[in-house]
This record gives sequence, C-alpha cells and structure tokens, in this order.
Amino acid sequence: MPVRERQKIQTLPWEAELKQSLQTIVEDDGAIVILDQTRLPGEVAFHRLSTLDQVAPAICSMQVRGAPLIGATAAYGVAIALADNADDARLQFSLDTLAATRPTAVNLHWALSRIQRALSHLPTEQRKAAAWREARAIAAADASSNQKIAKNGFPVLAAIATAQGCVSVLTHCNAGWLATVAHGTALAPIYAAHDAGVNVHVYVSETRPRNQGLLTAWELEQAGIPQTLLVDNAAGLLLMQGKIDLVIVGADRIAANGDTANKIGTYLKALAAKAHNVPFYVAAPISTIDFNCPNGQAIPIEERAVSELGASIKHAANPAFDITPAALITGIITERGIHAPAELHP
Amino acid sequence: MPVRERQKIQTLPWEAELKQSLQTIVEDDGAIVILDQTRLPGEVAFHRLSTLDQVAPAICSMQVRGAPLIGATAAYGVAIALADNADDARLQFSLDTLAATRPTAVNLHWALSRIQRALSHLPTEQRKAAAWREARAIAAADASSNQKIAKNGFPVLAAIATAQGCVSVLTHCNAGWLATVAHGTALAPIYAAHDAGVNVHVYVSETRPRNQGLLTAWELEQAGIPQTLLVDNAAGLLLMQGKIDLVIVGADRIAANGDTANKIGTYLKALAAKAHNVPFYVAAPISTIDFNCPNGQAIPIEERAVSELGASIKHAANPAFDITPAALITGIITERGIHAPAELHP
Repeated sequence: MPVRERQKIQTLPWEAELKQSLQTIVEDDGAIVILDQTRLPGEVAFHRLSTLDQVAPAICSMQVRGAPLIGATAAYGVAIALADNADDARLQFSLDTLAATRPTAVNLHWALSRIQRALSHLPTEQRKAAAWREARAIAAADASSNQKIAKNGFPVLAAIATAQGCVSVLTHCNAGWLATVAHGTALAPIYAAHDAGVNVHVYVSETRPRNQGLLTAWELEQAGIPQTLLVDNAAGLLLMQGKIDLVIVGADRIAANGDTANKIGTYLKALAAKAHNVPFYVAAPISTIDFNCPNGQAIPIEERAVSELGASIKHAANPAFDITPAALITGIITERGIHAPAELHP
Repeated sequence: MPVRERQKIQTLPWEAELKQSLQTIVEDDGAIVILDQTRLPGEVAFHRLSTLDQVAPAICSMQVRGAPLIGATAAYGVAIALADNADDARLQFSLDTLAATRPTAVNLHWALSRIQRALSHLPTEQRKAAAWREARAIAAADASSNQKIAKNGFPVLAAIATAQGCVSVLTHCNAGWLATVAHGTALAPIYAAHDAGVNVHVYVSETRPRNQGLLTAWELEQAGIPQTLLVDNAAGLLLMQGKIDLVIVGADRIAANGDTANKIGTYLKALAAKAHNVPFYVAAPISTIDFNCPNGQAIPIEERAVSELGASIKHAANPAFDITPAALITGIITERGIHAPAELHP
C-alpha cells in the first residue's frame, strides 16, 4: 500500500492542546488524531485521520508505530470505516484492509479479532457505536496494562540499584509511550524507577534503518532520564565492558513457546547479553502473545522497502524484525507479572 | 587533531590517470596522492599530500582508512615529514604525530617502528631517501601479503561452493582494496573466488556510523560481484535463516592470544555466527598481529566524535572498535596460511 501524502492540519484547536499533553492517539468527533512518529524527534506534528483510506497508510508508513499502538489504531480504524455503512461486506473489508498493513505485530490482529467478535453478531445499525466503544476499551486496556508492566518490572531495576547505587539499562528500538496508547512497555519500568528516585541510566540503540532509537532518546530527554545513544553495532562492546546491568526490549509478537519477534537487531543484543550473563527482559502486554503461534519460525517477518536504507542503495535486504529464541530471554514482563518464557499461558 | 579542510586539487595530470586505474595511494614527486574515502561511493576524489600537516589529518579524518593502508600512509608520512630536515628531533616529532592519529590499528605502529628502526642509526643526510625506500617496501609488502591472503583464503570459499554450487559470505566494514595498498584482506579471497568462476554472493553490513559497508558494496559492484547490503542489525536473522555460509572480516589489531579488534559490530556478528555454527574468519597480514599485546583487554579502543552519529545528537558514545574473543574465531587468514587463533607466532 503506498504511503499517502501527509494530511497535516494546522491551527486547529486540538493541536495546541495536544502539544501540551502529548498523546499518541486521541478521539476527535468520529475521527482520531495521531502524533506523526516519522517527524519526531525533529518536529511534533499531528494528523487527523477520518477515513479508512487515511488510517491504513498511517500504519503502513509508520506514522503510527509500536505493536500496542498499532493494535489500538487499527481498532479505531474499523470504527472510522463504519461511519456510513456497517454491513458485513464493509466490516470485512475494513478488517482485511487493516490486517494487511503490517504482518509481524500480532496486536494488530488481536485487536481486529476482538472487534470482529464484538461486532459480527450485532445488527448493522448498532455496529458503529459498538466499534467505537470497543476501540476505546482496547486503548484504555493498553494504558492500564502498561501501568501494570511498569509496576511489575520496577522491582528488577530497583533491586540492582539498591545493590550498587544505580542501574544501567540497554534498550533497542522504541517501546516507550510513543509505541503505545500510554506509558510504554519496555520503558514503563524505567519511568517507574525514575519516578521513584532510582538512579537509572539508559543506553539507547539507534535502531537502523528507521532510527526509532532517536524516539526513545527524545522520550527519555523529555522525562529528564539520563541516556546515551549508541549505534546498533556498539551493544556487544558495552556488554563486554560491564557497562550494562540489564536489557529490556518490547515485542511485536511472542510465540507460545516464548520465542519473541521484535525489531531487527534485538536477537544480536540477546546473544551478547547471554554471553555476559546480563539479564534480558521482554516487556509486552498479554495481547502481544500469540498462543496460536507455536514458535518463532512460524512468525512472519516483514520485509520493508530497500529505500529505507538510503536513496541510492541498489541491492539490499530489509527485514524489519528478528526472532529472539526463548532460551535467551530471562523473563517476559506483562500486566500479570514476570513469566519465564516457558510458562506463558492464555 | 582537528579535521583539516580537504585539499582537493583539480585537473592535475595524475588525476585522470588515477581514475582509470583506481589505487588507494601512489607516490608523486616527494608527495603522495590518496583516494579520499570519505567521498566514496558518491564521488571519486583524490588529494595530494605533501606535508606532515596534511598526512596526519587525512588519517584522523578517515580520508585514508583501513589498518593496512593506514600503516603504509604513515610510513610515507615520515618520508614526507623529513623533506627539509631529518634530524633526531624532526624524526621523533613525525613518528609521534603520526602515532597519535589512530589508537587501535596496530599496523600504524608497526610501520612507524619499522621506519624508526631503519632510520635511527643512519646519518641525518641519508634518512630521507631511506624513509622513502622503507615506505615503498612497506606498501609493496602489503600488496604482496594480500595476494597471498587471497590465495590462502580461496580454498575455504571454493570448498563450500564445490559442495553446494555457491557460497554466501557475510562481511562487515570495508576490508577490500580500499582498506589496503592493493587487493584487500577480507575481500581478497572473495575476489580470488570470483575470478576463478566461483559463484559467490556477499552480504555487506552497512557499518554505522561511518557506513564503510557502502565502500564494500561499491567495490564489489565495480568488480561485478553480486552483493546485498544489510543494516548492521540484520546479521543475526540472516544467520538464523541459514542464508550465510561463512563470515570473513578484517582486523585492526590481533592480540597474541588471537583476540581481535575490528570495526565496532564485529563481535555481535561473531556471536551470531557461533550460535549457528557458521565459520568466522579474520583475514589480515601478520603486521596486524601485536605479539606484545597479550589479549583483547589490552587493546586500546578508539572513541570517536559523537557527531559521527548525527549532527543533532546530544548524549552518545561512539567506540569505533570492539573485541572478538579468540574462542569465536575459526581461523585467521594471513600471508602464511590459515592459523587457529591459539597458534599465532611471530
């Protein structure tokens, strides 16, 4: 699906308000307003999406990104798509269109399935309102889950800081509030630790080719949390040098056996963490676990455009995710607690 | 040392000639002409360096880069520095100035020690000519060593291609002819295989922050060798997917125990290769082995400017090299043969 031209809407009343209390997604009179993550950190820009034709490309082009936020956005996308017609054909078309935007993140499919279950048995005239209610519930549940992830992950950081006075965390990509409806996943325990006065320092992996590490650095800077940006290549050396106490990343899909798909490069960090006995945690809501997927080999890996590597690149491959085997994962932090990868259950 | 303004010299007779037969370094009447590697692959530009004040910044700024080429360039730098005065003070000053340009690559120090040994006992008036002779010998020896590395590494690729019809090699950074006086180190066996009709495909790691992978892709494209560029993050997934038969990289310093300093990110590739039982080779001339350095912990790691990560980056670290432990290295390919890391000797 081609990337549509950006629909920047200027000087609307909600824009000033949103810039004051930054949020990734808000409802606006039958539409949603999203924070454009392809412009950050250089520019804080918002788009109002009022048709399915606007929502789907916003997900494809990564204006909206992060597995949990994609799920919530897709749910709102169905509600928006049913504005004038909510018959079976329209409902199915909107579900199919949104499901095709990104293949790896399972939250998208989880949210669409939940909407489908809630709507398909309803009379056509009740579906639109039900879709908005369901999307709102999905968004609220994400924010709530992430608060619990913060609470459940916090003791891991606090224990290290108690023992040695400070804690250094390595993260990859962006699994902060930008990647979710609110609070973040991997960064949620870090925010909780900082808020509790823990001396936390974050090493941020740049995350080529899309540089989502810059989003993480921007988030942390806004929150006043000390951070150091690294090229993706540097994680091995820093782990060898003992500069990192633990690694926390998000996830796009966790298989039933604990194998985890996350942003390309995650696996290399997990291998290096293992080599130096540094704990490696995945933080994600239960909605990121795909209990129908037996293991990492069954997770589809999105191949994105080669142009993401640079305008002049001729011959390239651009897989967007990799698989970290369960054996390299110390624990999976969800809203229910911290689980060993082998102990996941629906 | 600050990066000097580039001394681009246009329309000189040697420029057209050099562009026809691309070389990294050539003598030119008491000076050297170098191919500016910071302009590649977009532009083929040369600089004539005729003073020590020009040679040292060309190394610092990576206009001249690659451990073997740095060694040869530094040797020529001493010869150039002694143009008008070759007394002990001037000799020592030139050695010290050039030694301070880059800390990690040991070829630099090896070449300067060799020059020092050759010159220090000579009468002042004989030193300039001797320095040129010695620099020329160092450059010729590098080209010759690399031809032998090609010959010694070739059977590794040929054996895989014989067994399965083709061979896929992953490399990192640039250890091709651009990094040497001629022929390259890691790429030398690949060129030999391609010339012998072996069906070889090269996966090229982008190598942030300086993107020397683009130099490798450019070299391979010039030679008609199929290649695929990858972000540095992608190596783990491709190894997991079985797309890579072996890894070959160059080296900036090899300790006596076989621990190897090479461009940042090499270690992560070595860990991933080990995890998937893919052979991991280091190709380098004997001059890259530092027998005075017991192990990787004793190798100084250059920390380069944070601005290399991007103009707007505030808080970052930028180590330019990492250490791959000997245990992860299948073999070290030198001009003498292929050695187990534990079997290195002067």
